[in-house]
Amino acid sequence: MAIITLTTDFGLKDHFVGAIKGTIYTELEDVKIVDISHSISPFNIQECAYLLKNSYKAFPEGTVHVVGIDSEPSPENKHIAVLVDGHYFISANNGVIGLITSEVKPDKVMEIDIPNPIQGSFPVLDVFVKVACHIARGGTLEVIGKPFAQLKELKEFAPRVSDNGKTITGSVVYIDNYGNVVTNIQKSLFEAYRNGRKFELSARNKKIGEIYNKYSDIINFDLEKSRRKGPGDLLALFNSSNYIELAIYKSDLNTVGGASTLLGLDYRDTITINFI
Amino acid sequence: MAIITLTTDFGLKDHFVGAIKGTIYTELEDVKIVDISHSISPFNIQECAYLLKNSYKAFPEGTVHVVGIDSEPSPENKHIAVLVDGHYFISANNGVIGLITSEVKPDKVMEIDIPNPIQGSFPVLDVFVKVACHIARGGTLEVIGKPFAQLKELKEFAPRVSDNGKTITGSVVYIDNYGNVVTNIQKSLFEAYRNGRKFELSARNKKIGEIYNKYSDIINFDLEKSRRKGPGDLLALFNSSNYIELAIYKSDLNTVGGASTLLGLDYRDTITINFI
Amino acid sequence: MAIITLTTDFGLKDHFVGAIKGTIYTELEDVKIVDISHSISPFNIQECAYLLKNSYKAFPEGTVHVVGIDSEPSPENKHIAVLVDGHYFISANNGVIGLITSEVKPDKVMEIDIPNPIQGSFPVLDVFVKVACHIARGGTLEVIGKPFAQLKELKEFAPRVSDNGKTITGSVVYIDNYGNVVTNIQKSLFEAYRNGRKFELSARNKKIGEIYNKYSDIINFDLEKSRRKGPGDLLALFNSSNYIELAIYKSDLNTVGGASTLLGLDYRDTITINFI
Repeated sequence: MAIITLTTDFGLKDHFVGAIKGTIYTELEDVKIVDISHSISPFNIQECAYLLKNSYKAFPEGTVHVVGIDSEPSPENKHIAVLVDGHYFISANNGVIGLITSEVKPDKVMEIDIPNPIQGSFPVLDVFVKVACHIARGGTLEVIGKPFAQLKELKEFAPRVSDNGKTITGSVVYIDNYGNVVTNIQKSLFEAYRNGRKFELSARNKKIGEIYNKYSDIINFDLEKSRRKGPGDLLALFNSSNYIELAIYKSDLNTVGGASTLLGLDYRDTITINFI
Repeated sequence: MAIITLTTDFGLKDHFVGAIKGTIYTELEDVKIVDISHSISPFNIQECAYLLKNSYKAFPEGTVHVVGIDSEPSPENKHIAVLVDGHYFISANNGVIGLITSEVKPDKVMEIDIPNPIQGSFPVLDVFVKVACHIARGGTLEVIGKPFAQLKELKEFAPRVSDNGKTITGSVVYIDNYGNVVTNIQKSLFEAYRNGRKFELSARNKKIGEIYNKYSDIINFDLEKSRRKGPGDLLALFNSSNYIELAIYKSDLNTVGGASTLLGLDYRDTITINFI
Repeated sequence: MAIITLTTDFGLKDHFVGAIKGTIYTELEDVKIVDISHSISPFNIQECAYLLKNSYKAFPEGTVHVVGIDSEPSPENKHIAVLVDGHYFISANNGVIGLITSEVKPDKVMEIDIPNPIQGSFPVLDVFVKVACHIARGGTLEVIGKPFAQLKELKEFAPRVSDNGKTITGSVVYIDNYGNVVTNIQKSLFEAYRNGRKFELSARNKKIGEIYNKYSDIINFDLEKSRRKGPGDLLALFNSSNYIELAIYKSDLNTVGGASTLLGLDYRDTITINFI
């Protein structure tokens, strides 16, 4: 059974998501619909791409991903359907797909061109759902449009390596539900320059000399409880997406705060690694 | 496969929605359950009706819509099951269904009268789910109750036309996820009185002379970027439900604010259109 | 068709829940996935157990419940799979399951021991989903591990009966979406000690002499509207889970406030019942 995922900035209160699901089920009975997120900050292309990049591969190949953000068509924001890494994405050419294909070369990029499209303010419903159902039914990309060569590429903040490989400067790309601070420094980049050296990771006025593989690695279970590190302590780890992340062990953003609030780190802020 | 939708003010943290879905799947294996919204403001009948009116038609005919708001039965709040426009609604007679049937005449209105109903504080689970599953299995409305003639009709703020058709006064009926302000003035009403005239829409101290069909119509793509209107600019449009809506282009309620906060417009506030 | 439920503190914005659903559907096509809650306060074991205890029985026997909270394995937090009351729970041994089995004796408690587990920070995806799919496919618990005898039992605040059965002292275990205050005093305990006596329930400086079965029992429909109790009035009831609950009739936590804010009652605060 085909799967269609939804990633939007529509929020969970309004009727938009319900209307989309109703329309999909009206067009197609045998389909699974999965919400990836509807809580993206309005019009935040980077956030949308981050969430999609870190979840689409979990789905079976052939899954159709509807991207409902900044979706109104214009001369500068064409509707596109893209096949990349075995997955289909239906989106406006607002940069989200470009951020995904910056890491994996797409197999097909088509401009959507369906007959008599409704020219309204809800193209996710009027256009994307139609295209998604077409693909979910086994239809080809060729039927819904023509090849497209101007995939929008946003300049993304990439980590910078300087000082003959002694320094990596990265930036914050996402703050998660726990207030954990995700950076754009991948484990593979870090390891490529490390060469077995010690290092110091600096974030604001904090210094960290170790990067763990999971949160509870901060705890030495051989010590008595009173002598251990634990809730409230800062750590760095390679997270489940293999990026360096700063976290407060067992943080709660709503009560004691998380790494983002306690370190004062926000989206786009800088962290530095110096190999010693 | 039958579809049951859920529209409630239960929120997304508590166990209520999970318990309802578990109960439906226990009664009925072959059913699709779709959340329309669980984030309605507690006991807000108008908000609930607004979200339902703008989404139910997207579902296939025969869909069963469970309305979980202000659902405790009392002499003044009977449980009802209604067939209208090809859709089934299971609700208390609290005004939600009356707001839907004010626009489309219902085919059947039944008072729910099932044997030995549980008299507790969770009738959505104890009563509505039973009735919904009965209908989803193909059962008739006649089995679950008897005809009912007192559908509660809330006085809704309707737009007022005055000054020999020169003025339409409407009010705000909903603020959406982007802070966009939805009014109760339909495109059809506006066009019926316009007669090709120019007009001025007034909201607080702002005046607007144009109503678009989509948000990005505010942008003149022939101009250089620096000379265009864009993010932060106010516009009016006929939204996807064909109501006049005020919006700030690419607003984010959590950061820069939306039309509601920037204009200071809230639920029930007034906007005026003068034809010139 | 098998059902897998998800109860986590992952929130609804991040990609974690989407990734889990994608992975389940990749492993297993014929399965229903139901969200119980993803909005548990981070690492709040009691809250998680409360939501699960009050919803799992609504699902058919054989349902697999994935518990995604405080799930990193450590010498003190083993991964377990438990069969209790006909339901399967996949969790870390952090106390959630112990709070469920304190009321119902488990049939099987296994420590999860699958070959070559991924040792990362996302064991819900890497381990729990694998085990859940194994069980959903009809696999046995014996295959995924070995019997386990150290189920963690948190000392829970139990209601205290004192003064020769004249006083019950309970505490607040949950605040729901409406601000209603749920206590840990069950109807059965209350009735066991009442013996037909009158009583006074004290919460902060408020006294209540009656406990209803549903919210609208506060209203005497024989009186004229102006003379009735109604929105804004305080009441106590046995809620749908049979616990004593304090509520403000038709409260809205976001506007007028609920019982929690108006009485100043929070998690763990005390309420007292004196039989007279």
